[in-house]
Amino acid sequence: MTTTTPPGPTATAAPAQPLRAAPDTFARREWPRAAWYAAAYDVEVGAHLLPRTVAGASLVLFRTPSGEARALENACWHRLLPLSEGTLLGDEVMCGYHGLRYDADGRCTFMPSQKTVNPSARVRSYPVVERHRFVWVWTGDPADADPATIPDLHWNDDPAWAGDGRLIHVDCSYKLIVDNLMDLTHETFVHGGSIGHRSVAESPFEVTHGRGTVTVTRWMIDVEAPPFWARQLEWRGAPAGNVDRWQIIHFTPPSTIAIDVGVAPTGTGAPEGDRSAGVNGFVLNTMTPESPTSTHYFWAFARNYALTDQRITTLLRDGVSGVFAEDEEVLAAQQRAIDAHPEKDFYNLNIDGGAMWARRMIDLMLAAEDPSYAEAGDRAARDIAEHHRNDAGDGAEREVARARAEAERARSGS
Amino acid sequence: MTTTTPPGPTATAAPAQPLRAAPDTFARREWPRAAWYAAAYDVEVGAHLLPRTVAGASLVLFRTPSGEARALENACWHRLLPLSEGTLLGDEVMCGYHGLRYDADGRCTFMPSQKTVNPSARVRSYPVVERHRFVWVWTGDPADADPATIPDLHWNDDPAWAGDGRLIHVDCSYKLIVDNLMDLTHETFVHGGSIGHRSVAESPFEVTHGRGTVTVTRWMIDVEAPPFWARQLEWRGAPAGNVDRWQIIHFTPPSTIAIDVGVAPTGTGAPEGDRSAGVNGFVLNTMTPESPTSTHYFWAFARNYALTDQRITTLLRDGVSGVFAEDEEVLAAQQRAIDAHPEKDFYNLNIDGGAMWARRMIDLMLAAEDPSYAEAGDRAARDIAEHHRNDAGDGAEREVARARAEAERARSGS
Amino acid sequence: MTTTTPPGPTATAAPAQPLRAAPDTFARREWPRAAWYAAAYDVEVGAHLLPRTVAGASLVLFRTPSGEARALENACWHRLLPLSEGTLLGDEVMCGYHGLRYDADGRCTFMPSQKTVNPSARVRSYPVVERHRFVWVWTGDPADADPATIPDLHWNDDPAWAGDGRLIHVDCSYKLIVDNLMDLTHETFVHGGSIGHRSVAESPFEVTHGRGTVTVTRWMIDVEAPPFWARQLEWRGAPAGNVDRWQIIHFTPPSTIAIDVGVAPTGTGAPEGDRSAGVNGFVLNTMTPESPTSTHYFWAFARNYALTDQRITTLLRDGVSGVFAEDEEVLAAQQRAIDAHPEKDFYNLNIDGGAMWARRMIDLMLAAEDPSYAEAGDRAARDIAEHHRNDAGDGAEREVARARAEAERARSGS
Ligand code: FES
Ligand code: FES
Ligand code: FES
Repeated sequence: MTTTTPPGPTATAAPAQPLRAAPDTFARREWPRAAWYAAAYDVEVGAHLLPRTVAGASLVLFRTPSGEARALENACWHRLLPLSEGTLLGDEVMCGYHGLRYDADGRCTFMPSQKTVNPSARVRSYPVVERHRFVWVWTGDPADADPATIPDLHWNDDPAWAGDGRLIHVDCSYKLIVDNLMDLTHETFVHGGSIGHRSVAESPFEVTHGRGTVTVTRWMIDVEAPPFWARQLEWRGAPAGNVDRWQIIHFTPPSTIAIDVGVAPTGTGAPEGDRSAGVNGFVLNTMTPESPTSTHYFWAFARNYALTDQRITTLLRDGVSGVFAEDEEVLAAQQRAIDAHPEKDFYNLNIDGGAMWARRMIDLMLAAEDPSYAEAGDRAARDIAEHHRNDAGDGAEREVARARAEAERARSGS
Repeated sequence: MTTTTPPGPTATAAPAQPLRAAPDTFARREWPRAAWYAAAYDVEVGAHLLPRTVAGASLVLFRTPSGEARALENACWHRLLPLSEGTLLGDEVMCGYHGLRYDADGRCTFMPSQKTVNPSARVRSYPVVERHRFVWVWTGDPADADPATIPDLHWNDDPAWAGDGRLIHVDCSYKLIVDNLMDLTHETFVHGGSIGHRSVAESPFEVTHGRGTVTVTRWMIDVEAPPFWARQLEWRGAPAGNVDRWQIIHFTPPSTIAIDVGVAPTGTGAPEGDRSAGVNGFVLNTMTPESPTSTHYFWAFARNYALTDQRITTLLRDGVSGVFAEDEEVLAAQQRAIDAHPEKDFYNLNIDGGAMWARRMIDLMLAAEDPSYAEAGDRAARDIAEHHRNDAGDGAEREVARARAEAERARSGS
Repeated sequence: MTTTTPPGPTATAAPAQPLRAAPDTFARREWPRAAWYAAAYDVEVGAHLLPRTVAGASLVLFRTPSGEARALENACWHRLLPLSEGTLLGDEVMCGYHGLRYDADGRCTFMPSQKTVNPSARVRSYPVVERHRFVWVWTGDPADADPATIPDLHWNDDPAWAGDGRLIHVDCSYKLIVDNLMDLTHETFVHGGSIGHRSVAESPFEVTHGRGTVTVTRWMIDVEAPPFWARQLEWRGAPAGNVDRWQIIHFTPPSTIAIDVGVAPTGTGAPEGDRSAGVNGFVLNTMTPESPTSTHYFWAFARNYALTDQRITTLLRDGVSGVFAEDEEVLAAQQRAIDAHPEKDFYNLNIDGGAMWARRMIDLMLAAEDPSYAEAGDRAARDIAEHHRNDAGDGAEREVARARAEAERARSGS
């Protein structure tokens, strides 16, 4: 059997005794406003009006003739008709009811039957940046919109990586998807037929964090490769046999998670850093709250081999789609259960260490923009100050050593 | 280009600068109780039980053997089963659960298994008058039900007019339909393929009002006839060429609008009153609130030519149906937007002058029956007192003169 | 015509003048917690996870390898996923998300990735007893769960009786079904084609009650047999002709009703106790509230003749199904009307005497477990104390005498 995360001065995993979650797990505002959210895949936005609700705000997205993506409030200043029911005329949006026109910054440029246009007539315009194949929208004060804070998902358009992804609509809070991705133990139970394996739940993991990131590292040494990975090794011509498998989860608040995943034949040095004999991918995830109980979930899977083989791209995309469809069902059922049991709270296990830290990061963002959350913010800030920034590399080495020892013990039958 | 409504001592159009609507646009009670509402088309009511919700009240409608239409509260006195689930026996309604019977006035005449009938056992009966092909129901105090105050829609059964109509169910407040009909500018943008034409939005109009009516008059001089009208002129054998087109909207609160519409070849004297060379119709509309966000919308289109040509009746009815289907979509989208943005209010443009006056008339009715609206009532009363009754005829003449001057200017290319 | 229930020192029928129901008819909590409710038919529960909501509590039902039925709270202790989405492994339930396992008593026995299991980790377990083909669940304090208080529906598995039943889901409060069954007058109006007959509404009845039961007795002497019964007499080879028909309704709070029904050829002594020439059945009903406006309605029809003739079982079950489908429509329409008219209350007629007593019994249970209902409890207790326990036999004899006199009068044409 396995041990759970070993305590150490810099380890921040949850204690062995499950903790009662704060009674306000479900009481907070759901999402920070001062954040970049992926509103659309780049290809979704073109010379037409695309309605989309982002962090509770109803937006209309479009591309100007010069190719710039724009986002305006999707309610006409005059009598609220969604602008997405109107017409895009070059870089102007014409309302479909009485013909008011707005320029790409949301200023009204035309009113029917009158000579003058009220200078205060406008709809809100949102800062937009296109990056890593997503159209990002800033829902906070435009003065604070700093493109440098857009989460890093560069694997999605880095020429050294290839892949594809999808947008799915999930009927749950984006936080439940964060929880789901921060603990991959569930693969064993939810995805037994594809990527799950008992070794996932049985292997130790480590949670580390910095001021703006949480990392969960899990190495499974000398284990059987699950079908999803065995197939990829076969494509690469790797020899059959046990593998070293890794899952390194990187969280950026409020809701972006890039997971470094892969397998290499055992003994080829992957844990020490030489992954050349194996296969490596990144599962890219960014979850945009639509409402408190629904989410636009953007994901992609990027690999660093056979970059031009579209067959592999399609097979992998369909494989991941199937896995996420299993999650979707579980997540929607969990949300319904939360709604049906308003008196119940979550309990946390060891495996929830990553999710707990991710939620604290979100709380910190909420506290920063809402004084009534100061207490939560103080607590989260104190937690983070108490623990120096952990170097994920160090943690990983320690993990590998421990996992190796585990594997030894397992082989010797103890 | 065009000018907007010119100011004048008796003009009551909204000022050129859009006004912020009162913050309580959506806060008032939705409809007056002391009003006649169309509950059904005459042909809908027969020797059977028809359930219909009128102004929030659940009614059952039927016709007695002598042909009289009746309306009772649609909930059994005993245990609330809708009476419409029961049986009409002559002029009595028998409940489908335990067999209580009610006469056409709602008095209970039979109770099972007991000799006596509680004299207080009854369901509410509503005053009903059948007029102009509609079955009107009074939802206020029956003592105040005066048939003289039923809105005038006589074109619907006047032998000098022919036509047909429909009942449609729209998922919006009846007030949004009032707004829609009081400003036909939207034809340009919503109905571009049938009755819309840029000349509608570009032509000036005038709003006049009396104590119980609002009139919006718009003449379009020397314009192209839109398809709906061109076809009718062709049927009448009129020469091709430009037309003078009119739209004279008559509002009677809370929710009846008769629109005098037509075209005549330019130069044949229609603006001066001789419409004999043209075609004339009345768009008849009466909107009965079902709930705060849904409406029974009764409409008809009556014409004064080719009275017995059923083919024309059918073509016109289908044409108008298509136009209204476009409105239905816009109105339902607008209602959804209002519900999704409870913090947003309407802004008013010049084109909303008619709708603003119509809403003030409704407010006045609400104030009359609910002291808490006194302020709104005072304001509306003051507004109305400040402006003498405008003679629509005078207004129309002035409009025609102005429209002529506009057309001149337009032709001279300015 | 008939007279209504005659007054007498022990009769408790409602007075001849309908009473205004207490204004709180709809204000009380809907159901007692300290009660046994049928959660499922025995055959529904097996080696799989069956979700079902009982009295507002979401349960998962299953059978252990030894055959015992069990009921656990259907929300994982960890993060609330419904356990019914997981897997039954022998007598343990494994959650479908992170693999927590619970034994049949709800104690957690396994947590992934950790050695120790928090001893407080558990889900609620409900007392379960299987009896008379139903799986009964106690939703109150487990310490109070006394199997002796399970309602008597022994006809459902007594070898002297044969029959079958069904579970239907009805969109109304269980109390409306209690009302429905406590007054069979409605058969005349709702079930005219099967079991209804004007003699039901026209025959007198008597309501008697004890501390924990209400009985309504109705004898119809020398009447035509309705189709449902005529067919059964024919199967038994009984001679054609009028019958004596009985309906003896036994209510056990909060929601179980067994109805002794049958017919025998007039003159063969059924009213005096010799039913041997007739046919007899029991309509068994137990209504389990799901939510305030929906109910799991379990019913069966048991007969005491032709016990092994499956054809008759099927015909009778289908016949009763058809009757209940008529009730379902009426009940759902009544619930919708109640919801649409929150300002309206019920009025009671003579025929509602049984239902009124049944509701008082329910109120008494509610008062016992909720001090805020003390007044209702006091009233119900006083009512019950004032009237000694009536012997249903005596009542029935008196009923028969009266019904005979009625039949005489009817035949003599008065
Ligand atoms: S609602 Fe957009 S122009 Fe009127
Ligand atoms: S509900 Fe109408 S008669 Fe009982
Ligand atoms: S929700 Fe059941 S194990 Fe996590």
